[in-house]
Amino acid sequence: MKQLEMLYEGKAKQVFRTDDPDKIIIHYKDAATAFNNIKKATIENKGVLNNAISTLIFKELHKAGVKTHYIETINDRDQVCRRVTIIPLEVIVRNVIAGSMAQRLGIEEGTQPSNVIFDICYKKDELGDPLINDHHAVALGAATYEELNEMYAMTAKINEVLKELFLKMNIKLVDFKIEFGKTSDGEIVLADEVSPDTCRLWDATTNEKLDKDRFRRDLGKVREAYEEILARLQKIVG
Amino acid sequence: MKQLEMLYEGKAKQVFRTDDPDKIIIHYKDAATAFNNIKKATIENKGVLNNAISTLIFKELHKAGVKTHYIETINDRDQVCRRVTIIPLEVIVRNVIAGSMAQRLGIEEGTQPSNVIFDICYKKDELGDPLINDHHAVALGAATYEELNEMYAMTAKINEVLKELFLKMNIKLVDFKIEFGKTSDGEIVLADEVSPDTCRLWDATTNEKLDKDRFRRDLGKVREAYEEILARLQKIVG
Ligand SMILES: Nc1ncnc2c1ncn2[C@@H]1O[C@H](COP(=O)(O)OP(=O)(O)OP(=O)(O)O)[C@@H](O)[C@H]1O
Ligand SMILES: Nc1ncnc2c1ncn2[C@@H]1O[C@H](COP(=O)(O)OP(=O)(O)OP(=O)(O)O)[C@@H](O)[C@H]1O
Ligand SMILES: [Mg+2]
Ligand SMILES: [Mg+2]
Repeated sequence: MKQLEMLYEGKAKQVFRTDDPDKIIIHYKDAATAFNNIKKATIENKGVLNNAISTLIFKELHKAGVKTHYIETINDRDQVCRRVTIIPLEVIVRNVIAGSMAQRLGIEEGTQPSNVIFDICYKKDELGDPLINDHHAVALGAATYEELNEMYAMTAKINEVLKELFLKMNIKLVDFKIEFGKTSDGEIVLADEVSPDTCRLWDATTNEKLDKDRFRRDLGKVREAYEEILARLQKIVG
Repeated sequence: MKQLEMLYEGKAKQVFRTDDPDKIIIHYKDAATAFNNIKKATIENKGVLNNAISTLIFKELHKAGVKTHYIETINDRDQVCRRVTIIPLEVIVRNVIAGSMAQRLGIEEGTQPSNVIFDICYKKDELGDPLINDHHAVALGAATYEELNEMYAMTAKINEVLKELFLKMNIKLVDFKIEFGKTSDGEIVLADEVSPDTCRLWDATTNEKLDKDRFRRDLGKVREAYEEILARLQKIVG
């Protein structure tokens, strides 16, 4: 398999075409952005850390029977993945209330809801990735009701697997954002990445934040937090 | 039945206690507000017009088997209604995309979606009545999943009845906002009002707006639009 031209460059990753039309190479960068690209920085080695973390997590999800785009990791920054058409939705799971939901609804961060909360946002930078509901997603042509239900079922399963995995690492999975894509044969698979860029991870004992909020909120020791997540993950599944 | 003290004063209506603990009197005012109370005015006679319009609509809904809070209209500004605990959600139905949804999602106003869109917003002025989803509503304690499903089923029925009614008046029911409440015996009923304050109503031939958007957008002839709605309604069901 040969790496060909770059298909698109995102804020955290680059995606390259390969000579296999169903495979891409995802390259993890050190760039970090927040608040819809207003805050930017480089976190040294983040790409290497997220590639390693995402790799281990995709492997665990695969073992648990979750279909993902992940194929193999070919070096410390690059993964081969199935090429998909990304469904333009961010699916968010909230086990504990934090971040934008705490703000929008006036709920104190850290509040434990009685139910698991699923959000969908419309992936559209110009609109600021607004929160929508299933009817909006269908009206926008982002997905059908059936596809949404399939994504929610997969998301519930992913949440169960990840919650348990992180708990073994003494980490509370507060919330996370995932993206789904459709393969050329119409299968819906988990795509993109699962990393401290896309999850809120709190130490289960101290509630110390070990994720991108350290960057968003200028808490310092960002790289160290990502290293800690990788180290604990490797102890469990490495 | 005797009218007792005012329970609360809203932007468009006053609610009075009566000597029957299960009945209130709703008094329709001429005050109009928009954009979460930033824009204010008096629209002469609006209270009389909305009382009359709401009365006719509640009667039609009752005939169609929809449970509502409406009991009787006792003068040109006052209705006796069942006292309910308002479920703190605004339920919005969109048959055509307009208003906040057009803006948030960058869709041209007047676009016809392939599906009927239901939104729920959390009734909380301080937060600007944010759009939420079912999981948020449950986490907030506003309703249970079962209650939400009951409200959605009632809402779908209400939309069918109102769409047909307005079509007979040569009016397109673009969207509308309703509120539900729970009676003392736990029944969920349609509450509040249904009027040009809470519906977007476009002439089916000319697309002329005959609703509160004339006030919101300074289109003039606000009272005349409400009068037109009442006149057409009286022709059909008066
Ligand atoms: N398997 C895949 N096939 C095709 N595209 C993918 C796949 N997995 C992820 N992508 C897309 O590749 C891009 C990854 O880049 P990155 O995460 O840096 O994007 P981003 O700046 O966050 O932008 P976006 O707002 O699109 O997420 C994203 O647009 C993502 O949706
Ligand atoms: N049957 C009922 N029993 C009790 N309260 C009711 C009933 N029907 C409507 N209400 C409530 O009475 C108030 C009516 O006043 P109005 O419509 O002027 O309020 P508002 O300024 O729009 O405020 P809100 O943001 O609460 O809707 C609203 O709070 C409404 O929810
Ligand atoms: Mg991304
Ligand atoms: Mg009101």
